[in-house]
Amino acid sequence: MTTINEKALEMHEKWQGKLEVVSKAKVNSKEDLAVAYTPGVAEPCRKIKENREDVYKYTMKGNTVAVISDGTAVLGLGDIGPEAAMPVMEGKAVLFKEFAGINAVPICIDTKDTEEIIKFVKQIAPTFGGINLEDIAAPRCFEIEERLKKELNIPVFHDDQHGTAIVVLAAVLNALKVAKKQVENVKVVVNGAGSAGVAITKLLLKAGFNNIIVVDKLGMLAKGQEWMNWAQRELAEETNKECQIGTLKEALVGADVFIGVSAPNIVTSEMVQSMNKNAIIFAMANPTPEIMPDVAKAAGALVVGTGRSDFPNQVNNVLVFPGIFKGALQARVSQITEDMKLAAAKAIAQMVPESELSEEYILPAAFAEGVADHVAEAVRSVANKEA
Amino acid sequence: MTTINEKALEMHEKWQGKLEVVSKAKVNSKEDLAVAYTPGVAEPCRKIKENREDVYKYTMKGNTVAVISDGTAVLGLGDIGPEAAMPVMEGKAVLFKEFAGINAVPICIDTKDTEEIIKFVKQIAPTFGGINLEDIAAPRCFEIEERLKKELNIPVFHDDQHGTAIVVLAAVLNALKVAKKQVENVKVVVNGAGSAGVAITKLLLKAGFNNIIVVDKLGMLAKGQEWMNWAQRELAEETNKECQIGTLKEALVGADVFIGVSAPNIVTSEMVQSMNKNAIIFAMANPTPEIMPDVAKAAGALVVGTGRSDFPNQVNNVLVFPGIFKGALQARVSQITEDMKLAAAKAIAQMVPESELSEEYILPAAFAEGVADHVAEAVRSVANKEA
Repeated sequence: MTTINEKALEMHEKWQGKLEVVSKAKVNSKEDLAVAYTPGVAEPCRKIKENREDVYKYTMKGNTVAVISDGTAVLGLGDIGPEAAMPVMEGKAVLFKEFAGINAVPICIDTKDTEEIIKFVKQIAPTFGGINLEDIAAPRCFEIEERLKKELNIPVFHDDQHGTAIVVLAAVLNALKVAKKQVENVKVVVNGAGSAGVAITKLLLKAGFNNIIVVDKLGMLAKGQEWMNWAQRELAEETNKECQIGTLKEALVGADVFIGVSAPNIVTSEMVQSMNKNAIIFAMANPTPEIMPDVAKAAGALVVGTGRSDFPNQVNNVLVFPGIFKGALQARVSQITEDMKLAAAKAIAQMVPESELSEEYILPAAFAEGVADHVAEAVRSVANKEA
Repeated sequence: MTTINEKALEMHEKWQGKLEVVSKAKVNSKEDLAVAYTPGVAEPCRKIKENREDVYKYTMKGNTVAVISDGTAVLGLGDIGPEAAMPVMEGKAVLFKEFAGINAVPICIDTKDTEEIIKFVKQIAPTFGGINLEDIAAPRCFEIEERLKKELNIPVFHDDQHGTAIVVLAAVLNALKVAKKQVENVKVVVNGAGSAGVAITKLLLKAGFNNIIVVDKLGMLAKGQEWMNWAQRELAEETNKECQIGTLKEALVGADVFIGVSAPNIVTSEMVQSMNKNAIIFAMANPTPEIMPDVAKAAGALVVGTGRSDFPNQVNNVLVFPGIFKGALQARVSQITEDMKLAAAKAIAQMVPESELSEEYILPAAFAEGVADHVAEAVRSVANKEA
């Protein structure tokens, strides 16, 4: 890890920012200036004033996304503030461009207040075709996203929630094929009820999983538990139907699938051994997973995935958000709906041909050709049906 | 004009946005991804968290400016809203890049409330090295800028005010050389007491002009006039010392310099004839000036300038803001001070060698080599003295 960190520091100092804003319009003469700026620029302004939708025709809005963060839940680093969040948001913007050709602008803001963040995003919305919320702490990230989805007419997507949920669903669907198990019949344990865990659980429910237990630091989410926040309380209504109380260890007994978005090294060999035969493990704590793949395999797991690129089955949001936004911007949808998310997960899963599916190959690689386009097509196709 | 407008519309539709956000970091392999994004990106984040100033070392902040508008005073079009303002803000960002190599991001916002705009800019400030306010209506533009200058530690510059004021001062200084008149001895009439007129007057006062009359739609600004807004009331304290009341026509009798940032065709031949010998006229209403140059010349004016590129002596902000921000970012100043503005005006004036100064050549052309660097150097030099 040290060498990557050193290299990263060296390169960030060299880049002084991973992004550059460049002009498509050349201004080498008075006439160029008169066309790109005054007086000619008044003409597209007038057109947009007459018909606001023309902003998509004459400006960058239609292919530009804001990557907005308050810097409160950055990677595993926590609340490091807006300035320190900048390298991550720039990195995200790099991926938007490189994987989907979308202009993305990092916007790190100096407020942690839910209402202030909502107001800020509404005020900045005229400039952008879509809003990617990033690294905002739970549970306020849920309210911020929900409110903005209602109050804005451009797509708003909290990637830590839905990007993760979509790629996890894709991974689970393919892993079940390898394990020859059915969505309706499996028991799933999700560990970590923050932004990612809540969104994963909701999308699994939407996809037809009906036996899910969610566990957080203080134990299983179950109706009546006093320590739960409002988002967890909502989840407890739809999961853990027998209202079991207890620890992760107890939850895992007889489970088919473990999904960890939590903390390093908290799953033991014994816990894996207590799961059903051909267990599926997605241990996505970063950089150290909930259980190392070799340990999980030795304890009997069939399919193991992590967030890391140095093990098989990397579960990586980069498979999701470029294509999701590409499709949403192309179809100019006002929302990224649950059906679009499901379709995106299925599209990602389909990128691995059934004949090549195996315990160590359940997801396309981050750099596989055509993933973003395939996901974008799935989103557009749902958009057409919903229109 | 029609052909420029048609061409502008055609080109804006072709560009679909005059800007593009591109990546300096290539991501063609897993290792690239690990350096530009996770896990390596955590390292510059940690450094910035330890020392917030490192944001200038590892991110784009230090060379990136936000061009922020509420769309209320766009060109001559008035309050056209944030979407319709986008083509202008993109154009401005194009000029920042092409003339000074600065990344600029157009941000058009959906609020006209003074306090909301101030709060918005403060919230977005961590992302940017400087704030260029643009096309915000007077008088609230004054309060917004003043407050932000006090409350932020990055430079804030309302270009409609100070960009215009600086280039006008440069033009007047050189015109006075041609007319062989002295700053202390001339009478100046400024017509139009909006954002530009107020800022021009203040900078002229700072530069030593002591006989100025400012005129607005309802007549001369003069102590006690009920119709003035608070910004105009302030100006009336420092101008029009004899507290004269009357029209533009009356103000111009015996004046040496006319500066118009007002409306088309409101200055007549007779008015110019009533001015002192070798009168200087800057008629900057766009696209039709307060008086056409040939008419002013025929009436006896010595030097005539406009905002237009198809007449001699174009008075154009593009000579100012790229260099002002380049110098301010390079020196990492927290404010653009009055002395920096004066120095910038003198630097622009100096770009025309004394030996070449003439009635038709008082300002460098928009595309003259080295203007931005020369202005930037002047700003840095003042910054060093003030530090």
